[in-house]
Amino acid sequence: MIIVGELINATRKAVKAAIENRDAETIRNLANGQAEAGAEYIDVNAGIFIDQEAEHLKWVVDQVLEATDKPCCIDSSNPKTIESMAAYLNEKNGSIPMVNSISLEQERYEGVLPVIAGTDLKVVALCVGDDGMPESSAQRLANADKLINGLVKNNVKLENIHVDPLVQALATNSDYGIEFLKSVEAIMTGYPGVHTMCGLSNISFGLPARRFMNQTLMVMAITRGLDGAIMNPLDQRMMANIVTAEALAGKDSYCMNYVKAFRAGTLEA
Amino acid sequence: MIIVGELINATRKAVKAAIENRDAETIRNLANGQAEAGAEYIDVNAGIFIDQEAEHLKWVVDQVLEATDKPCCIDSSNPKTIESMAAYLNEKNGSIPMVNSISLEQERYEGVLPVIAGTDLKVVALCVGDDGMPESSAQRLANADKLINGLVKNNVKLENIHVDPLVQALATNSDYGIEFLKSVEAIMTGYPGVHTMCGLSNISFGLPARRFMNQTLMVMAITRGLDGAIMNPLDQRMMANIVTAEALAGKDSYCMNYVKAFRAGTLEA
Repeated sequence: MIIVGELINATRKAVKAAIENRDAETIRNLANGQAEAGAEYIDVNAGIFIDQEAEHLKWVVDQVLEATDKPCCIDSSNPKTIESMAAYLNEKNGSIPMVNSISLEQERYEGVLPVIAGTDLKVVALCVGDDGMPESSAQRLANADKLINGLVKNNVKLENIHVDPLVQALATNSDYGIEFLKSVEAIMTGYPGVHTMCGLSNISFGLPARRFMNQTLMVMAITRGLDGAIMNPLDQRMMANIVTAEALAGKDSYCMNYVKAFRAGTLEA
Repeated sequence: MIIVGELINATRKAVKAAIENRDAETIRNLANGQAEAGAEYIDVNAGIFIDQEAEHLKWVVDQVLEATDKPCCIDSSNPKTIESMAAYLNEKNGSIPMVNSISLEQERYEGVLPVIAGTDLKVVALCVGDDGMPESSAQRLANADKLINGLVKNNVKLENIHVDPLVQALATNSDYGIEFLKSVEAIMTGYPGVHTMCGLSNISFGLPARRFMNQTLMVMAITRGLDGAIMNPLDQRMMANIVTAEALAGKDSYCMNYVKAFRAGTLEA
């Protein structure tokens, strides 16, 4: 499971304040804590600052680089910000970040594609276009197909593409869980080598016990092949679910990671 | 999910003692408690008493009938016991019990088949033969196919067959989880109308945090179509996993059962 730590996001009040106050310790602790908990990428998002996004994000990235060796996931809807941050990271330590995200929305597609075409950048590809959020697995798959083909044609390697089928709220339609799960399986079996990526928490929007539902969906998605998530790696029960589901899915030789997690005391929250 | 409450089993010390001492209250409380927690059938097993099995089981069944309206699941390897208990239950209140179980093992197959052929009895069909436990999903499916065809040919309705693909210990082979899961899906999609049934706890044999692993496998099995389990319905986290997984699998209109479980305080253990 490729875990992208989601906590350094300026839509969160404490993070916004830390950025405004140049409180390096808070940001570094979030970066380091997520890395130690198992994040492979550290998501950085300062989109809330609009015109000052690039300036703030550069400072945030500096703190992440101080705190951990994990690469960043540049989370922005502004292609210029993505481009300048990718260049900055390359110059600083040669790390290859993940770009979050491209989609089929025309403006974003045309803006982000030139930034990633022919590079080694990883990219999150959201299965959404200008016609709105996908509802069925067929719609997700059609969008995934367009994205994957378009990216590969522009010299983005299949293994650098992390398709996000997009989760919608189960409270609005009882089929939104199963349609999402089917699409994960169809993408992972239909395009061998590609990755999937997902923020799962939309599923429980409007329902009680949200964390529990999100944790349960993670287990179901792993059995369908999901191999990436944008999430809070400090959610111990979620991490326990992941390690256990991966063992049960045959992805943990001799259950070594499972037993290691048990010994570290992280299985029984 | 068709839940068969597993607690009235004389291999459990307290149950054995209660049967020997004719402690009706203990058995009735177990029957009633499981029914109230969501069991659709109450498993009764007195196999440990060998020659006195039928005599003890009749007393146990009497207690269950006093405590709840739920039908029994007659859990015995002795065809004569199964036959006499089924007849006794039919005479007492006309209820249609589940028989646990038939298998491809020759002695059991030939002994149990005449008891259930042409009747409305439900039957658990274990995917095991005289050649030993199945390892791959293909072996499970081959056994399931033989069982289903044999039973249907002998006038057992497809919808009365609950196929148990049999779980083996993950600690002995990292593929035993995924092979089991694949077989659940293959059985449920290959024989529309048939049911699946499983005791999941073998999966975690030899591993730590066993309950957590069993609970996680349940979630994965539900997304593959599992619709029955022999289990402890008083395991609140297991029940929370079931209601949540069923909502996510599209089996809970408007998430009504999920919200009901939350209101009853059973989701957040």
